[in-house]
Amino acid sequence: MNSSTAQCYTAAVLIIGNEILSGRTQDANVRYLAQGLNAQGIRLCEVRVIADVVEPIIAAVNELRARYDYLFTTGGIGPTHDDITNQAIALSFGIELERNAEAVRRLTVYYGDALNEARLRMAQLPVNATLLENPVSQAPGFQVENVYVLPGVPRIMQAMFDGFKHRLAGGQPMLSRAVNAFIPESTAAIGLAEIQEKFPNTEVGSYPFIRNRRLGTALVVRSADPAALEAATQAIATLVRSLGATPEITDGESARTETDF
Amino acid sequence: MNSSTAQCYTAAVLIIGNEILSGRTQDANVRYLAQGLNAQGIRLCEVRVIADVVEPIIAAVNELRARYDYLFTTGGIGPTHDDITNQAIALSFGIELERNAEAVRRLTVYYGDALNEARLRMAQLPVNATLLENPVSQAPGFQVENVYVLPGVPRIMQAMFDGFKHRLAGGQPMLSRAVNAFIPESTAAIGLAEIQEKFPNTEVGSYPFIRNRRLGTALVVRSADPAALEAATQAIATLVRSLGATPEITDGESARTETDF
Repeated sequence: MNSSTAQCYTAAVLIIGNEILSGRTQDANVRYLAQGLNAQGIRLCEVRVIADVVEPIIAAVNELRARYDYLFTTGGIGPTHDDITNQAIALSFGIELERNAEAVRRLTVYYGDALNEARLRMAQLPVNATLLENPVSQAPGFQVENVYVLPGVPRIMQAMFDGFKHRLAGGQPMLSRAVNAFIPESTAAIGLAEIQEKFPNTEVGSYPFIRNRRLGTALVVRSADPAALEAATQAIATLVRSLGATPEITDGESARTETDF
Repeated sequence: MNSSTAQCYTAAVLIIGNEILSGRTQDANVRYLAQGLNAQGIRLCEVRVIADVVEPIIAAVNELRARYDYLFTTGGIGPTHDDITNQAIALSFGIELERNAEAVRRLTVYYGDALNEARLRMAQLPVNATLLENPVSQAPGFQVENVYVLPGVPRIMQAMFDGFKHRLAGGQPMLSRAVNAFIPESTAAIGLAEIQEKFPNTEVGSYPFIRNRRLGTALVVRSADPAALEAATQAIATLVRSLGATPEITDGESARTETDF
């Protein structure tokens, strides 16, 4: 665990899933985790998607858990033969798998007589893993040190994450504003670079969009410092006006329903 | 470049974009590239999303271009200060940036008098880079050795990729079938593991779904060998029937419009 200061907590997400790499499934977890982590003052710094193969999972887990304050994995904790995440996590930490008694209890309550050997695989967890509650279908996720092991099904992943996210140690959330205007981004580029230099504790990004068939640009400021955020936002609005356009200031990270290009 | 045999070509995608990590933007490029590469007989093996910061980009580019036959990057090749991919790619290869004459020519045709200094940044490319055509807005992507540098805007990325994908050396496409049935995946788990063992040159995956409020499972077989694909698919269909359900056989990777859980 490193780069953990009062201001800045970092995280990575590791998506374990052949179905994402094959193009079968559109990932729906990264955005949810990114926004939820940011609200806790934890910054998502890296995402990886890898296949359901033990050795590459171990390598990625060990690299990412050392580099960031938190690692969240999704996928591969179900009842079938291709669910190998529990085993890979145990091997990453060099600890054994055990049949977790509390996990068995929860699965028994949920499945009753339908609790079969396949479902009991979901109770094979690293020794002394901390369980993460699953309010949807009971099969728990788990935590070992700074690694949080979550399911891939978005509805269950989200419910599980929401159940523990408030307990994560974090810093200041990254705040964000967007100055939207119907100008091509190149028109604002030089002025924007000057604003970025003037406000070094902000990040200024430029994202083109098309709305009602008109080309525009969202000029997005991100900062953990509210005063810097406001000052940079106003500087960008002034720049936009100087270019003859009308700035529309919105939240920086909110979902766009119009065509985002 | 390694793991390149007649049968198996591999690729990674590196998404360079603060806007994905912040949760602002939902990635729309991975699935398109995954399916397009597979059609060319190239298998997407890893995806990474990293921030718009030069040093981590260099590290990821050099790791991934060495490990896989192809690396495709998206994002960071526009006209603003936060577009640093060209510089990072040049540094990854230890070569200089130059103002590419052909790129300037294309931008001049497209922008005419509106070609400003910011837009000319998009013509600063690594020396001797091979241009990739951009039929939408002319600013070219480029190729250096096995690294293909593409824009992040999905509409432009897709048009550019479609323009050169047929020229990529590849092997046999991974074929895929899904056996869909209204059974919970744990019911099929033991039989499915046996089928996976019996057909080692296939990959068998299990993905739960909900359709019309009923829980079901897509049992997906992937293989480059049509005979093995068919045999494993039929074995799974037989398994499903033995469990009292009706197998529905479909393409394995097609988009699902119903709730995929």
